[in-house]
Amino acid sequence: LASEFDLIRRFFTRPVSHTVLGVGDDGAVIRPRPGMDLVISTDMLVAGTHFLPDTDPEALGRKALAVNLSDLAAMGAEPRWALLAAALPTPNEDWIAAFCRGFFGLAGEFGVDVIGGDTTRGPLNLTPTVFGEVPVGQAVTRSGARVGDTIWVSGAPGRAALGLAHLQGKTVLAEPGLSACLEALQRPRPRLAVGVALRGLARAAIDVSDGLLADLGHILEQSGVAAEVDEAQLPTGAFKAAPEADAALVRHCLLGGGDDYELLFTAAPEKAEAILRLGQQVGVPLTAVGRIVEGASPSILLRDHDGRILTPPQGGYDHFL
Amino acid sequence: LASEFDLIRRFFTRPVSHTVLGVGDDGAVIRPRPGMDLVISTDMLVAGTHFLPDTDPEALGRKALAVNLSDLAAMGAEPRWALLAAALPTPNEDWIAAFCRGFFGLAGEFGVDVIGGDTTRGPLNLTPTVFGEVPVGQAVTRSGARVGDTIWVSGAPGRAALGLAHLQGKTVLAEPGLSACLEALQRPRPRLAVGVALRGLARAAIDVSDGLLADLGHILEQSGVAAEVDEAQLPTGAFKAAPEADAALVRHCLLGGGDDYELLFTAAPEKAEAILRLGQQVGVPLTAVGRIVEGASPSILLRDHDGRILTPPQGGYDHFL
Repeated sequence: LASEFDLIRRFFTRPVSHTVLGVGDDGAVIRPRPGMDLVISTDMLVAGTHFLPDTDPEALGRKALAVNLSDLAAMGAEPRWALLAAALPTPNEDWIAAFCRGFFGLAGEFGVDVIGGDTTRGPLNLTPTVFGEVPVGQAVTRSGARVGDTIWVSGAPGRAALGLAHLQGKTVLAEPGLSACLEALQRPRPRLAVGVALRGLARAAIDVSDGLLADLGHILEQSGVAAEVDEAQLPTGAFKAAPEADAALVRHCLLGGGDDYELLFTAAPEKAEAILRLGQQVGVPLTAVGRIVEGASPSILLRDHDGRILTPPQGGYDHFL
Repeated sequence: LASEFDLIRRFFTRPVSHTVLGVGDDGAVIRPRPGMDLVISTDMLVAGTHFLPDTDPEALGRKALAVNLSDLAAMGAEPRWALLAAALPTPNEDWIAAFCRGFFGLAGEFGVDVIGGDTTRGPLNLTPTVFGEVPVGQAVTRSGARVGDTIWVSGAPGRAALGLAHLQGKTVLAEPGLSACLEALQRPRPRLAVGVALRGLARAAIDVSDGLLADLGHILEQSGVAAEVDEAQLPTGAFKAAPEADAALVRHCLLGGGDDYELLFTAAPEKAEAILRLGQQVGVPLTAVGRIVEGASPSILLRDHDGRILTPPQGGYDHFL
């Protein structure tokens, strides 16, 4: 951009509160607190692949950061810093200003210092990188699940996918479920309070971005275990908004929709009470939906509402659904 | 990409040597050494903006990392970790393999663990993020230059721009200068040994990516000072390769070319001997080219070969040249 420096100064330079050196030099400088590991995640969002070019820029700004912060939540990390690298077509200042309202707004809500990045001309591409802290050795990974663990999920995964299906005309949702589904799609809230509180409680965790079964598969694969999931236990409050005739679509969203960024985690059975209490404290429903079992990793046995046992094919959850 | 997991496993997952948790989870986990600040930089490289789509992928992989590591060098940081976020059009495995040879090859040469990133489908976009360590408070910034400082430059900035001019048919270079210019263009070496050794010696530093005068301008602006540059002192060894008739082009490359990523820095005059010794130790010429003076920031007085004083307009160096 001819006016890169000007753009950076006007839109991307904000005060920082816990950073040695922010935007404006060859690099940013941060000083992690003693005794802390640093958790780092990046997600690249491309117009046409991850969002439509005419997506509301403020919502897009929020979501670009939210999906990255969700990865920190899944590791039990407290969010602290973010970078934003952005390729922009011909600069549209209104668009940039709205995007920044969303991005910096969410950063402010979670106490994240935006410390640098890059802006350049090119096909629209937004690549935030986020940094969180977790006490040394306490990061929650995908590989810690053990046979006997209970499988838990936060909130109600699938609402965002159902909201998208409504917008695409594949179903017609009724209120108040419709609003809840659209909110989950357009303004997902990363489950950071849950994630930080899961340190020492959860043995393994992941955020649901590919879909409940697919992401459970990632935990199983990295932990070398199998799982049983009870479909009747899955949280479905918002799904009553859909017509009964669309039951298959609802089920597809529930088991395969990932865009609401809930947390899926496993914990020893004796932690159940502490986990339920945690959910009440932070105001997010936490629901036990199955258990880790011995078996060929990463196979999943799904017990449906009629008690039938189904085996979704490994990695082919979308096709199965 | 349908085969994103497969691609990541096959091409982007390499052994790490000093990382708590690398590729494969929701985030990477690193543990900066006690007493160290973390320096972070990211550069987004877009096809058509920063490189031609048919650029040799191995050279591109090296360069994508090199330009990022150069920012660490300019801060006096030791490179430690890198992320790679990449949007790729229809996956071409030969292209990806060659790119990775370049990227991971250079990472290995500098002891950098590649700890994560993202791959997705989209217009070709390569966004590395790099992390270096520097003892607490010792990062070298753009804002520390003081009146009386000597201005130094490493190597011979402008060779890459001259090599590009040769490839574009704007001049015809003779050997051995031609090879040196093409090497500077296609395989720039980040000046990391120089950068780390400048801790405690340099007061301010920047890497020359926009051009010598433009990047000096950034130091002046952030330090609130002005500068005098002696054109006769600028290192021009490789430039003898150009025909005398192209003197104006050569001068443009020297003062305005930035693609070889040399370091420009300022230091107190009494450090001159230590700096010259450092250059000999690491095998990189370090040349005094001017001094920091009082005056309207960020103005530059350029003394040309005939002793005339010129004043390049602020921010308009390209036009001036």
